[in-house]
Amino acid sequence: MTSSTNVSRFHEARRVAIFGGTHGNEMSGVTLVNLWIQNGKEIQRKGVETKPFITNPRAVEKCTRYVDTDLNRAFTTENLSAPSGDDLPYEVQRAQQINETFGPKGSPEAYDVIFDLHNTTSNMGCTLILESSKDHFNLQMMHYIKVNLESVYSLSLCRFLNKNMIYLKVLNVFISGLEVGPQPQGVLRSNIFESMSEDDVVCCLYCVGLEFPPCTVDVFRVSEKMDYPRDTNGNIIAMVHPNLQDCDWEPLNPGDPMFQTFDGTTIRYEGAGTVYPTFINEAAYYEKQQAFVTTRRETLAAVFPMTQLKKNIDN
Amino acid sequence: MTSSTNVSRFHEARRVAIFGGTHGNEMSGVTLVNLWIQNGKEIQRKGVETKPFITNPRAVEKCTRYVDTDLNRAFTTENLSAPSGDDLPYEVQRAQQINETFGPKGSPEAYDVIFDLHNTTSNMGCTLILESSKDHFNLQMMHYIKVNLESVYSLSLCRFLNKNMIYLKVLNVFISGLEVGPQPQGVLRSNIFESMSEDDVVCCLYCVGLEFPPCTVDVFRVSEKMDYPRDTNGNIIAMVHPNLQDCDWEPLNPGDPMFQTFDGTTIRYEGAGTVYPTFINEAAYYEKQQAFVTTRRETLAAVFPMTQLKKNIDN
Repeated sequence: MTSSTNVSRFHEARRVAIFGGTHGNEMSGVTLVNLWIQNGKEIQRKGVETKPFITNPRAVEKCTRYVDTDLNRAFTTENLSAPSGDDLPYEVQRAQQINETFGPKGSPEAYDVIFDLHNTTSNMGCTLILESSKDHFNLQMMHYIKVNLESVYSLSLCRFLNKNMIYLKVLNVFISGLEVGPQPQGVLRSNIFESMSEDDVVCCLYCVGLEFPPCTVDVFRVSEKMDYPRDTNGNIIAMVHPNLQDCDWEPLNPGDPMFQTFDGTTIRYEGAGTVYPTFINEAAYYEKQQAFVTTRRETLAAVFPMTQLKKNIDN
Repeated sequence: MTSSTNVSRFHEARRVAIFGGTHGNEMSGVTLVNLWIQNGKEIQRKGVETKPFITNPRAVEKCTRYVDTDLNRAFTTENLSAPSGDDLPYEVQRAQQINETFGPKGSPEAYDVIFDLHNTTSNMGCTLILESSKDHFNLQMMHYIKVNLESVYSLSLCRFLNKNMIYLKVLNVFISGLEVGPQPQGVLRSNIFESMSEDDVVCCLYCVGLEFPPCTVDVFRVSEKMDYPRDTNGNIIAMVHPNLQDCDWEPLNPGDPMFQTFDGTTIRYEGAGTVYPTFINEAAYYEKQQAFVTTRRETLAAVFPMTQLKKNIDN
């Protein structure tokens, strides 16, 4: 990777992986990656080795999110350094295998970029998820994709959401987590398929060799995880309020309706200021005690000086 | 049950069961029935014993459609007469237990009515599903509910869809299968919850004691099961066409787009005449090789003469 006068270039990305089926019931990524495994012409770029890969084949076969544990939370240092064996949960075994194949981070044989394709039942549109506001190269690339693609609705920073959420943390330098919804689990909708295939992944590959000038980037930074209201036994006693349902990325102000109890009582948002909820009523997050996350809008300056670049490469 | 001059009355329904969780990830019925188990005031009617019941508790716990096999296809005569035991698939054991508790059909201790609450990922609105066009009492009751409730979009006759689909076949005389959607599996949406709770089930209970005059009823009769286009290995090669997606109950004419292959080719409907597709792109039907079912519109005369009534009761 080179940089001159704060211009970032993506031409050192020689090996790019595209992951589908990290959650086996998120059908757009599963379908696209399977199609590309059969015929990779659409994702081939000169000078780039592109590898489409089904990360959780058993979950895909069962059309379920995971078999033993959530693969997208399994890339912990502890899991990756555990003695391997069949007695480990299936997804921990997979995490170790994926780490060996596409990592380990910092090794010469590690892949340069991973695109990880996800669907959500939330009405989030097309969202690129980054982990770090300090990764200026990634920010510039995401900004480039967003301004060139009307379908990309939002950039979200999830670094504070879950420290083990993103592969990047352990595996690689550059990653784009892509969430597209709404789409029910186990369903393939043509509109979601189109926006994921034509616009995003393939466009990311076109970034290879492009120069990204310094820019400012509007992002939603994840702030707080909001659980459903519960009784003393832990049972959910309210639903996402109809005024909030499907309103991902729209402002939620103090006093706005947030939940509705089963007997019709409105529970209002009591935070200190305006937030922008997302992952609203995502099916997979009921078990994670999460009704939605709040985010706050932020504008970041993405300038990629050589020193930062060098540091990123070295790390 | 009595009838005079072709008027049907519902006042002999002394024992009514309300089933939720027949599919453990269809959350409206699961939630409603659990609420009614805690507090049944809303569904209590004078002279009627109303029993809310979770039919597949293990599937509910796992938030999955089923554990071993689809409970809603398990009520076969063969299953119900099989020697009971722990080696049977879980849902076959449940079918036997449910048959003992709420049936068996024709026995004095059998329940009179079962309401079975379902959700679908399809954009079907609120659909009451009947098995038989010959069950005039049920038709009249459903007609009463439909004309009194704007939210009930359609009545569907499924008797030709799957001979083991409906409990009625084995268990009871009167049943209403209720499908409400769209709602992703594992998600509870307030709008779907409201339409299922306020409008339908409770309204059905209000029918007890009402008189239903003879009437004509517009129904959609299930005609044909349509699979996704597949390659020679059985892999799906096309999605529901965007023109058809979410258009449940709308006319599909010969020549109209039906599927779209992954490379963008349109596959058109080539049937002989207009049909009305439904269960379009339902998540649970991928494994059943079903992209949607076609239905045809029909108007039935629902007259409930004493002889028919008597026959229904005796059978």
